[in-house]
Amino acid sequence: MDTQVLEMPNLAVFDELESEVRSYCRNFTTVFHKAKNAKLWDTCNNEYIDFFAGAGALNYGHNNERIRAKLVDYLLQDGITHSLDMATGAKEAFLERFQEVILKPRGWNHKVMFPGPTGTNAVESAMKIARKVTGRTTIMCFTNAFHGMTLGSLAVTGNSFKREGAGVELSQSVFMPYDGYFGEDVDTAAYIEKLLGDPGSGVPLPAAIILESLQGEGGLNEASKGWLQRIERLCKSRGILLILDDIQMGCGRTGSFFSFDHAGIEPDIICLSKSIGGYGLPMAITLLKPEIDAWKPGEHNGTFRGNNLGFVAAAEALSYWKDASFEMDILQRARLIRDALEGMLAKHPQFNGELRGRGMIQGIAFADPAMAEELCSHAFQLGLVMETSGPRSEVVKLMPPLTIELEVLKQGLQMMERSMELLAHNHSTK
Amino acid sequence: MDTQVLEMPNLAVFDELESEVRSYCRNFTTVFHKAKNAKLWDTCNNEYIDFFAGAGALNYGHNNERIRAKLVDYLLQDGITHSLDMATGAKEAFLERFQEVILKPRGWNHKVMFPGPTGTNAVESAMKIARKVTGRTTIMCFTNAFHGMTLGSLAVTGNSFKREGAGVELSQSVFMPYDGYFGEDVDTAAYIEKLLGDPGSGVPLPAAIILESLQGEGGLNEASKGWLQRIERLCKSRGILLILDDIQMGCGRTGSFFSFDHAGIEPDIICLSKSIGGYGLPMAITLLKPEIDAWKPGEHNGTFRGNNLGFVAAAEALSYWKDASFEMDILQRARLIRDALEGMLAKHPQFNGELRGRGMIQGIAFADPAMAEELCSHAFQLGLVMETSGPRSEVVKLMPPLTIELEVLKQGLQMMERSMELLAHNHSTK
Amino acid sequence: MDTQVLEMPNLAVFDELESEVRSYCRNFTTVFHKAKNAKLWDTCNNEYIDFFAGAGALNYGHNNERIRAKLVDYLLQDGITHSLDMATGAKEAFLERFQEVILKPRGWNHKVMFPGPTGTNAVESAMKIARKVTGRTTIMCFTNAFHGMTLGSLAVTGNSFKREGAGVELSQSVFMPYDGYFGEDVDTAAYIEKLLGDPGSGVPLPAAIILESLQGEGGLNEASKGWLQRIERLCKSRGILLILDDIQMGCGRTGSFFSFDHAGIEPDIICLSKSIGGYGLPMAITLLKPEIDAWKPGEHNGTFRGNNLGFVAAAEALSYWKDASFEMDILQRARLIRDALEGMLAKHPQFNGELRGRGMIQGIAFADPAMAEELCSHAFQLGLVMETSGPRSEVVKLMPPLTIELEVLKQGLQMMERSMELLAHNHSTK
Amino acid sequence: MDTQVLEMPNLAVFDELESEVRSYCRNFTTVFHKAKNAKLWDTCNNEYIDFFAGAGALNYGHNNERIRAKLVDYLLQDGITHSLDMATGAKEAFLERFQEVILKPRGWNHKVMFPGPTGTNAVESAMKIARKVTGRTTIMCFTNAFHGMTLGSLAVTGNSFKREGAGVELSQSVFMPYDGYFGEDVDTAAYIEKLLGDPGSGVPLPAAIILESLQGEGGLNEASKGWLQRIERLCKSRGILLILDDIQMGCGRTGSFFSFDHAGIEPDIICLSKSIGGYGLPMAITLLKPEIDAWKPGEHNGTFRGNNLGFVAAAEALSYWKDASFEMDILQRARLIRDALEGMLAKHPQFNGELRGRGMIQGIAFADPAMAEELCSHAFQLGLVMETSGPRSEVVKLMPPLTIELEVLKQGLQMMERSMELLAHNHSTK
Repeated sequence: MDTQVLEMPNLAVFDELESEVRSYCRNFTTVFHKAKNAKLWDTCNNEYIDFFAGAGALNYGHNNERIRAKLVDYLLQDGITHSLDMATGAKEAFLERFQEVILKPRGWNHKVMFPGPTGTNAVESAMKIARKVTGRTTIMCFTNAFHGMTLGSLAVTGNSFKREGAGVELSQSVFMPYDGYFGEDVDTAAYIEKLLGDPGSGVPLPAAIILESLQGEGGLNEASKGWLQRIERLCKSRGILLILDDIQMGCGRTGSFFSFDHAGIEPDIICLSKSIGGYGLPMAITLLKPEIDAWKPGEHNGTFRGNNLGFVAAAEALSYWKDASFEMDILQRARLIRDALEGMLAKHPQFNGELRGRGMIQGIAFADPAMAEELCSHAFQLGLVMETSGPRSEVVKLMPPLTIELEVLKQGLQMMERSMELLAHNHSTK
Repeated sequence: MDTQVLEMPNLAVFDELESEVRSYCRNFTTVFHKAKNAKLWDTCNNEYIDFFAGAGALNYGHNNERIRAKLVDYLLQDGITHSLDMATGAKEAFLERFQEVILKPRGWNHKVMFPGPTGTNAVESAMKIARKVTGRTTIMCFTNAFHGMTLGSLAVTGNSFKREGAGVELSQSVFMPYDGYFGEDVDTAAYIEKLLGDPGSGVPLPAAIILESLQGEGGLNEASKGWLQRIERLCKSRGILLILDDIQMGCGRTGSFFSFDHAGIEPDIICLSKSIGGYGLPMAITLLKPEIDAWKPGEHNGTFRGNNLGFVAAAEALSYWKDASFEMDILQRARLIRDALEGMLAKHPQFNGELRGRGMIQGIAFADPAMAEELCSHAFQLGLVMETSGPRSEVVKLMPPLTIELEVLKQGLQMMERSMELLAHNHSTK
Repeated sequence: MDTQVLEMPNLAVFDELESEVRSYCRNFTTVFHKAKNAKLWDTCNNEYIDFFAGAGALNYGHNNERIRAKLVDYLLQDGITHSLDMATGAKEAFLERFQEVILKPRGWNHKVMFPGPTGTNAVESAMKIARKVTGRTTIMCFTNAFHGMTLGSLAVTGNSFKREGAGVELSQSVFMPYDGYFGEDVDTAAYIEKLLGDPGSGVPLPAAIILESLQGEGGLNEASKGWLQRIERLCKSRGILLILDDIQMGCGRTGSFFSFDHAGIEPDIICLSKSIGGYGLPMAITLLKPEIDAWKPGEHNGTFRGNNLGFVAAAEALSYWKDASFEMDILQRARLIRDALEGMLAKHPQFNGELRGRGMIQGIAFADPAMAEELCSHAFQLGLVMETSGPRSEVVKLMPPLTIELEVLKQGLQMMERSMELLAHNHSTK
Repeated sequence: MDTQVLEMPNLAVFDELESEVRSYCRNFTTVFHKAKNAKLWDTCNNEYIDFFAGAGALNYGHNNERIRAKLVDYLLQDGITHSLDMATGAKEAFLERFQEVILKPRGWNHKVMFPGPTGTNAVESAMKIARKVTGRTTIMCFTNAFHGMTLGSLAVTGNSFKREGAGVELSQSVFMPYDGYFGEDVDTAAYIEKLLGDPGSGVPLPAAIILESLQGEGGLNEASKGWLQRIERLCKSRGILLILDDIQMGCGRTGSFFSFDHAGIEPDIICLSKSIGGYGLPMAITLLKPEIDAWKPGEHNGTFRGNNLGFVAAAEALSYWKDASFEMDILQRARLIRDALEGMLAKHPQFNGELRGRGMIQGIAFADPAMAEELCSHAFQLGLVMETSGPRSEVVKLMPPLTIELEVLKQGLQMMERSMELLAHNHSTK
C-alpha cells in the first residue's frame, strides 16, 4: 500500500453512540470493511496487514475460504444455527473430529464441555468444576496472568487496571510468582512447594492451579518445560487440579496445537476459545478429564453454548491438524519472524529491547514502555496493525494469522523495520 | 407430523464425548439437523414444532430468510467477521439503526456498550459500571431472579442449584422479595424502602437494583406497572442505579420491544442479549445513560465483542420494529395462546393450574411440579418442544418464535392440549 | 445531689493522649473516681446516680461488697490470676456453681466454653462452631441487631455506622426483619420460612440464626414469646442452629436469669458476657449443647480465657440466683420504673413517646431523636447517668444495677422526671 | 520439688462441664491453685516452675507484690472497676505514666486507643483504622504470623488449623514470605517491593503491612534489623501503614520495652496486650500516630475497654521501665538461658536442634517435631511448665517471667537439661 493515506473514514458515529469503554478503535483509527487472510481494508479502501489477528481469534486468517464454503453451505441448507445444548448434527461432527484429530493422537480421553462462547466462560466453568470436585475454594494463579473479565476470571487475572474495574473485592485467588519472576536463581515452583508444605504459611491448599504456558497479555513471559513439569507433579502429589488456559496460545499459535505439547504434560482441565471457532466466531470449550466431569446436568449453562456456525467452522479448521504440514508452515514463519526481530534488535541496541515469545507470537520488550506504544503508532500509519502487551504495555507483540502468505509476512516485517527506524530517528538526538 | 416416530437418532457420540453438564439434550432426546422459523427436523427427518425458541434467542425464528440473505451476502463479500472492538462498517450500521429505531422514538440517549457476546457479559458489565460510578459494592436483587452463570451474575441469581455450582461464597448481593412474593397484601417496594431508610437494618445502600420486569427462569412472575415505577422512584431518590435485565424478555417477547415499555420507566442501565443478535448469533449489548458511561477505554473487554455477523443480523432484525405492525402480530398470537391456555385450565381444573406470563411468553404453573415435567415429556413425544421453568420446574412455559405462522401456532397449541389430555388420563384414577 | 455543680474535673489528659475514638466521656464530661452500687463520684466529689450500669456489665452494682470480699481474699492468698485455659481451683468452682444454679434447674446439659473475656469473643466462637458443625457458612441475623465489633460479629450487627468502620465487605450474613419490623400484620417468621423453603429465593440455608430476645442497642425492640418459639421450631425442622446472644439481656436484666426463660426455648448456643463476670470484670462464656461441642482442642483460643478474678467474682454473683428472692426484687423495681415512665408519657404527650422494654431495661422511644439526646444531657446535669440507644439514638434507656436501693431508684426516676420537664419547657413554645 | 509426685488433682469437673476446646489443661494435667512470681502450686500442693508465663501475659510474674498492693488498695477504696470508655482517675494515671515512661523518651506522640481487653481487639482495631485511613482493604501479612482468633485477626494468621476453625473464607489478606523464609539468599523485602511495583502482579497495594518482629507462635522466627528497616521504608514510600503487633514480644520480653527498639523504626500503629495489664489482667492498647487517628467517636467500641484494675496494675508495672536496671536484669537472665541452651545442643547433637529467639524468649527447634512434644512432657513430669510453638509444634519455647529469681531460673534450666537427657535416653537405641 501507499503510505500516503489520502482519505480516512469518519468515526463520528462511534464517538456519539458507543460507550467510552471502546478501546482498539482509538488506536486503529479507521472503519474496517473487508478482510482476507492477513489483509484488511477500511471503508476508504486503504489496505492494512494484520499482525494482530483478532488477538489470537483469527489463527486461520480472515474469511478463510475453506471454512467459509462450509458456513455458507450450512446456512443455505437451513442448518440449525442456535441450539442451546441440544444435540445437533453440527455438534456431533465437531465432537468426532476433535476426538479424532486432537484427543486420540495424544492418548487423552477428556470430555468436551461447551461452557458458553467466550474464553471467560471456559475459565469460569473450569474454576467451578475444580472447586466442586475438590471441595476447596482457592485458585492459585500467577503474576501477570490474564484469564478474563467476568468476576471469577478477573479474580485470577493480575492486571490491576482490569481488577479495579470489578468494583468489588476479588477473592479466593492467591497469586504466585510465575517462572522466572524473581530472577533466574529463584525457583518459583520450589517456593510454591514450600508454602504448600508449611501448615503455617497462610496459603491454603488450592482447588486448582491455573496458568498459561506463555503469558500473552502479561508480556510474552514463557514458562520453561521443566517448570511446567514440576508444577504438574506438585499438583498430582497434592490433589490439586491443573487448569491450562490455552485460550490465546492454543490452536497452533506457538507452533503445536496446544502450547504445552512440548512439555509432555496432561492438564486436568484445558480451556480453549478464540481460534477454536475457526473463523472468528464466538466459541469456547472446556476439556475435563472424565474422572472430574462431576457436573450435574445443567449445573452450568448459557444461551450461546450451541453456536452451530462455530461448530461447523471449528470442525473444518481442525482439518489443518490432520497431518504435520501445518506445523511445518508455522515453524517456517516463526523463523522468519525471529530472524527479523533479531535483526531489528541488533540494529537498534539503544532501546535495550528483549526478544520474547515463541512460534507465531513473538515480540520485543522495550525498556521504555513509551517506545512500544510509539512503534505501534508508526506501524499503523504505514498500514500495519500491531499491538502491545505487558503490565506497562511495554511489549510489542506480533501475532499474524498462522496462514499468512510468506510474501505478506515479509511485507509486514519490513513495515515494522521501517517503524523501528522512524522510532530511532525520533529519539536519535535525545 | 405423525406421532408414530419410527426411527430416532442415536445420541451415543454425545454420551461418550460430551461433558455430563449437558442438559436439554437429555429431555429432547434427538439430534436436530435443520430448522425453519418455528419448525425443527432431526437427522431422521422427524418434524417438531418449536415452542422454546432457543430460550428466547430466536424471536425472529430459525433461519429467518430476510436475515439470512444479509448474512450470506456479507460472508461472500469478505466482510469483517471478527473485529474485537475496532470500528467496522457493520457495527456502524447497527449503531445507527439501533438509535433510529429503538432509542430515538423513546427520547433516550443511552450509550451502547458491547460487553462480550453473552447475556452474562452484559450483566457483569452492568454491575461493574454501577459499582464504579457509585463507589458502592452491593447489588440488590430479587427472589427467583436469573441473571447468568459467571461469578458476578450468579451472585444475583436466586436459584440454589445454580448458586451451589459456584463452589465459592457469592457475595455483595442482597435478595429482596419480588413484587407479590409475600402475598398481595405486602408491598415489597415499601419493605425495601423501609430497610434502606433504617440505619440499623443491616442492608447497605446498594450500587444498583437489578431486576427483570417478568421473571422467565424464575417461573413467569410478573411485576406490576406500579411496582416498577415505585422501584424506579426509590432508585432515583437514593442515588441507586436501576439495571433492567431484558435479556430474555426484551426484543419483543412480551409484546413491545422492551418488556417494561408499558410502565414508562427509563432504566439507567439495560441489558440485552439473546434475540438482539437476530439470528441466534452470540451478541449482547449494555445500554448506559451517558452520565454513567464512566468507563476508561478497555476497562472491560473481551475477544468476541465484535461479532460482526451478529451486527449484520441484528441490524436487519431491527427492521421489524420500524412500525407497529410487528407488535400487532405478536398481540394476535398472544391472544391465541391465552385463549388456548385458559381453555386447558378450564377443562382440567384438577391440576390447580395458574396462568402466568404475558405476550408470547405464557404458561401454566402446576401445583404439583411433577405434572409440568410430564406434560413437556408428552409434548415432545408428540413433536412439540417446550420447557419448564420456576424454582421447582413447576411452570410449563410457551415461547414460540414471535414470527410463528398462525397455523403452526395452532397446531402446537393442539399438541399441547393433547398432552394435557394424556396427562389427565395418566392421573385420572389417582 | 445539688444541681449546682461548682467544680468539674479537667479532661485535658484524655483530650491530649487518648484516641479520638473515645465516646462516652464526651457525654459524661467528668472524671469518675469512686463508685458504690448505683452511685458514682467524680474526682471533684460530685455524686451521680447510675442508670447505665456499664451498659449491662454491672447488674450487681459497683463494688458489690459480697463479691469484693471474695476478690480481695483471693488476691491476698496468691490465688492464680491468669491461667490461659489451664485448670484452676477458681475455674472449677465456677463451673460447679454454674451447673448447679443455672443449668441443672433448667434440665440443660450445655458445655461451657471460655472463648476469651469479651462478648464479641463469645459471638465469634458461636458462629465458628455453628459453621464447623453444619458445614454451612451463612449466619442469619436481624434488623437492628448488635453483636460486637470484631469482624465476624460486626457482620451480623445492623448498625451502618459501626459496619462502615470495618473498612471491608462484611459477608456471610443475611439480615431478616425482626419480630414486628414490618408492622403487626406481617409475620416475619413466616416470611423467613417461605424464603428458606423456596429453592429460588437466593437465601441459602444458614448455619445458624443469631438473635437477641430483646434488642438493647437496637432500640429496646422485643420479640414475642410466640415468635421466639416459631424461630426455634424453624431452626429444629431445618437443622439450623439457634444462637441466643444474651450478653446484655442475660444475668437477670429482664427479670429472669436468661431473657428468654419465659418462652421456654432451649437455644443450641448461648452467649453470655457483661454481667457474668459479676463485678464488671472481663469474662464471657459460650454455652454449647454437647452434641455440637465439636471443637478440636485449641481450635479457638486466646490469652485471657482464664481471668480467674472473673471466675471468683462470677461464682459469688451466681449465689444471687439460688432462690427466687432476687427475681422478686427485680420485679418490684421493674414495676416502679414502668409506673414512672408511664407517668412521664402521660404528662408529656407532645413527645409521642413510646414505652419500650421489660424488667430493668426499659425506656422511651421519642418520635424526634434529638429529644432523646437532650433528655440525657439534662439528666447528666442533674447527676443522672443515662444513655440512648436505637438506630437514630432515639430511645432513652434506663438500666440501673439490679441491686439498686429502692430509695436511690426513686431519686433517679425523679431526676429523670425533672429532665423531662426541662425538655418540655425548652420545646414548649415551638 | 520431688519428682515423686504422689498425689495429683482430679480433672473430672473439667472433663464433664467444660467444652472440648480446652487445650493446655490436657498437657498440664493438674489443677493449679496458687502462684508466686515464677512458681505455681496445684491443689495437691505440688510445686512447678513456670517457663510459660501465661504465654507472655505474666512478664512481671504471678501475683507481683508491688502491683498487688495497688490493686487491693484500689478495691478497698471503692475505686471504679468498670467504666466503659468514660474518663476515670485510674485511666488518667495510666495515660500519663505511659506517656512519660514509654512515649516521651522515644520522641513519639502516638495516641492511645483502648480497643477492648484482648490482643485480638487491638489487632482488629488496627486493621480497621488502616483500612479507613487509606481507603484500601488488603492487609499484607507473613508466613507463620499469629495475630488472633476473631475473624479479622484470623485472616492475617498463618496457622492452617486455626484458619480452618473460621468456617468461612478469610479474605482481604495476602501472605508474603517472612524474613529468611525462602533461604538466606532470597531477600523477601525485595520480592515484596517487586510485587508492589508491578501493575500486573495481582498483589494490590495494601492498606497496611502487619508483622511481628519476632514470631512467637510461628516458631521463634526473627526478622533482622535491616529487613525491618527496609519494610518500614517500603511502607513510607508507598503510603502503606506499618502495624507492629508487639502483643507477645512487647513489654520487655526480648530485652527492651518494644521488641523492635533496636531497629530504630517507628511503626504507624502498635498493638500491645498480654503483659501491658501487668498482673495478667485483660487489657490491650492500640497506639496510633496522631495523623491517622481518624476515628469518629464510638466507631469502634466494646464493653470492657475500661478495665480499671488493668489500668492500676499497668501503671505500676510501667515503673519497671523508669530506668535501665530492669533491662540489665533481663539481659543477665537471657544470657543464662542462651548458655544453658547452647550447652544442651552441644551435648545432644543427634537432635539437630537449632537455637532460636532472643532475650527471654528463646528455644530449640527440633528436626523431629515429636521430640519437642516429648521434651515438654518430661519437663512437666519433673515440675517444669514449658510449651512448644511453630507450625508443627517443633520448637520448645522458654519464656519465664522476666522477674524470675536467678536461682529459680537455674533450677528450671536444670530441669530442662534433665528432660533432654530423658529424651536422649528414650531415643538412644533408635
